[in-house]
Amino acid sequence: MTPAVPTELLADRLRRAGEVAAEQGVDLLLITPGTDLRYLIGAGGESHERLTCLVVPAAGHRAPPAIVVPRLEAPGYDGLPLADLGVDVVTWTDGEDPYLLVSDLAGGPTRIAVADTMPAVHVFGVRDALPDVTQRLAGPVIRELRMRKDAAEVAQLRDAGAAIDRVHARMAEFLKPGRTEAAIGADIAAAIVEEGHSSAAFVIVGSGPNGASPHHDVSDRVVERGDVVVIDIGGPLPGGYYSDSTRTYAVGTAPSAEIAETYAVLQDAQERSVAAVKPGVTAEEVDAAAREPITAAGFGEKFVHRTGHGIGLDVHEDPYIVGGNSLPLEPGMAFSVEPGIYVDGVWGARIEDIVVVTQGGCERLNARPRDLVVLD
Amino acid sequence: MTPAVPTELLADRLRRAGEVAAEQGVDLLLITPGTDLRYLIGAGGESHERLTCLVVPAAGHRAPPAIVVPRLEAPGYDGLPLADLGVDVVTWTDGEDPYLLVSDLAGGPTRIAVADTMPAVHVFGVRDALPDVTQRLAGPVIRELRMRKDAAEVAQLRDAGAAIDRVHARMAEFLKPGRTEAAIGADIAAAIVEEGHSSAAFVIVGSGPNGASPHHDVSDRVVERGDVVVIDIGGPLPGGYYSDSTRTYAVGTAPSAEIAETYAVLQDAQERSVAAVKPGVTAEEVDAAAREPITAAGFGEKFVHRTGHGIGLDVHEDPYIVGGNSLPLEPGMAFSVEPGIYVDGVWGARIEDIVVVTQGGCERLNARPRDLVVLD
Repeated sequence: MTPAVPTELLADRLRRAGEVAAEQGVDLLLITPGTDLRYLIGAGGESHERLTCLVVPAAGHRAPPAIVVPRLEAPGYDGLPLADLGVDVVTWTDGEDPYLLVSDLAGGPTRIAVADTMPAVHVFGVRDALPDVTQRLAGPVIRELRMRKDAAEVAQLRDAGAAIDRVHARMAEFLKPGRTEAAIGADIAAAIVEEGHSSAAFVIVGSGPNGASPHHDVSDRVVERGDVVVIDIGGPLPGGYYSDSTRTYAVGTAPSAEIAETYAVLQDAQERSVAAVKPGVTAEEVDAAAREPITAAGFGEKFVHRTGHGIGLDVHEDPYIVGGNSLPLEPGMAFSVEPGIYVDGVWGARIEDIVVVTQGGCERLNARPRDLVVLD
Repeated sequence: MTPAVPTELLADRLRRAGEVAAEQGVDLLLITPGTDLRYLIGAGGESHERLTCLVVPAAGHRAPPAIVVPRLEAPGYDGLPLADLGVDVVTWTDGEDPYLLVSDLAGGPTRIAVADTMPAVHVFGVRDALPDVTQRLAGPVIRELRMRKDAAEVAQLRDAGAAIDRVHARMAEFLKPGRTEAAIGADIAAAIVEEGHSSAAFVIVGSGPNGASPHHDVSDRVVERGDVVVIDIGGPLPGGYYSDSTRTYAVGTAPSAEIAETYAVLQDAQERSVAAVKPGVTAEEVDAAAREPITAAGFGEKFVHRTGHGIGLDVHEDPYIVGGNSLPLEPGMAFSVEPGIYVDGVWGARIEDIVVVTQGGCERLNARPRDLVVLD
């Protein structure tokens, strides 16, 4: 069963969402099913073609909070403390226009922000019901809340980090020469669930040349002795918070001197980047702390992605650790630090930890060895 | 492994999408990851925060077809016949503005239609890059293609129907008094995969009063002898096409005369509705064929949903079998026929088959007994 989020925490989130909305000049937030909805009311809802939409008024706005739900899906919300949160449940049946219900709740032309993940069919449905209203994204409001994790959220991310570490600790069971990436990946996926996740959201087994493709999945390639293999894995705990950790392994034998030297550059870069994390440092400075030593060693062109991404109820969320993001870090922000070096067609490596910013620096949520572990 | 869709079929779909777009006054379709993308190029892509977008020109439009993909996700498209389909691959890296790439491909102000499922963040990103362009939904274009299944699609739906029938045939293994709905549901989910699905997308075990909630999931309620239980289950085959079939069972003993009489009304309504399906009949006439006998028997208020939904790469898609939908049926259209009667707080029943419209009527894709089967 899904752990319930305490009602007072949800009430506080709804209140703060309304306050940030008001600060940003938004009158009403429209939140369709997804992780924003889960964050605000404790359940993410189901995203079918029928509209479900939480309407959150800005502080001081006349509309009450309400959730528009198809009548036949309404029982799915029975377990939530909606009454205690002061959220009205407004149901509709097939044949009714749910966008007009949203329009009625809005109480007239107003400044609306819609969830970043709202499907276009609903964006346009709301637009047609409120034609004089300019829509903007709710992401800038919601992320102000979501990217600053509270203690309960950090505890869940810590549990997720420990769970995925237990999977990496068992890697010698799975990653053996003579097996396909797909077979190894299937075993890892099962272990991810065994170690406490509700599902295996992603399992990358990038062996040999496949390690050079950062978003490789698994393939029928047979892992050979001497391969360097990138293992990037994670999933949500039942509470919804994600793990995400990458380690790179050498199969059966120590790597060549050239690979070992390149890997040492990467490992140093990852350490420097983690060491740079503290309140007041910007996201792009953390990116630069990883990128500069890799570039100085001549591999800048081979580090083809940003250094990291925020993590929480989504595996990718704010803050993004990327050039151009001048956001100053604050305590409670959680994100990956995962530089990589990719030699097209030959091999690749990546090291990824989740970190949470603390008052004095950061807490690493993954603790497995970061060197190029040789699995015999 | 996922069965590949023949390249000539994909080429034909892309060509027809361009033709229907032109007929509807659309210059360019923008298709983000999801089932529309899978339908058009054979893979659904990954929907991350980074933009992936297929740009399909209308027939006669100057822009070439292209897919905008994050550079690090591009290898995921290597297995597709994009070159044979004449689809350019345009990659972008973190820090670039992918919406400007879409704007460049559009070649100037134009009439754009975006996938119904495109997340608002991308809808607004495209809007900002092409501020003078009015966006509309691509659904009306794509559904003209997707709701008319070709022979290969019907074959996949037929396989899916047979697979879920095999699960219903095993129901006596799972549905026993003394077990919770959740335990029964977990066994059914495993059986759905064992019988050939790639996942169990939904498992409704609505026992006793829970049967009165059409979108009930599972709960900790313990099934008792004498319960009537609604079992609504399905999932996708590896090729992506969905099964969806509901049967209602009596546990351990025959139901009361009152329940048996009500169930007979439902079964008759479902038969009449299926019998009404043939080319030229409208979707709402099929809905009415189920609704009228239920209403005549005094249960009209207890049939709280539409009669059915189209099915294919999505479990819910066009055509919807609902009052107000005057769409005339055509051969190749596939949808559920699933009337239900729900007595709040007491019990419920539903019978659901997938049907495909043929020249002379329809083919039922589910063949399990439709009466209230008593499981001993």
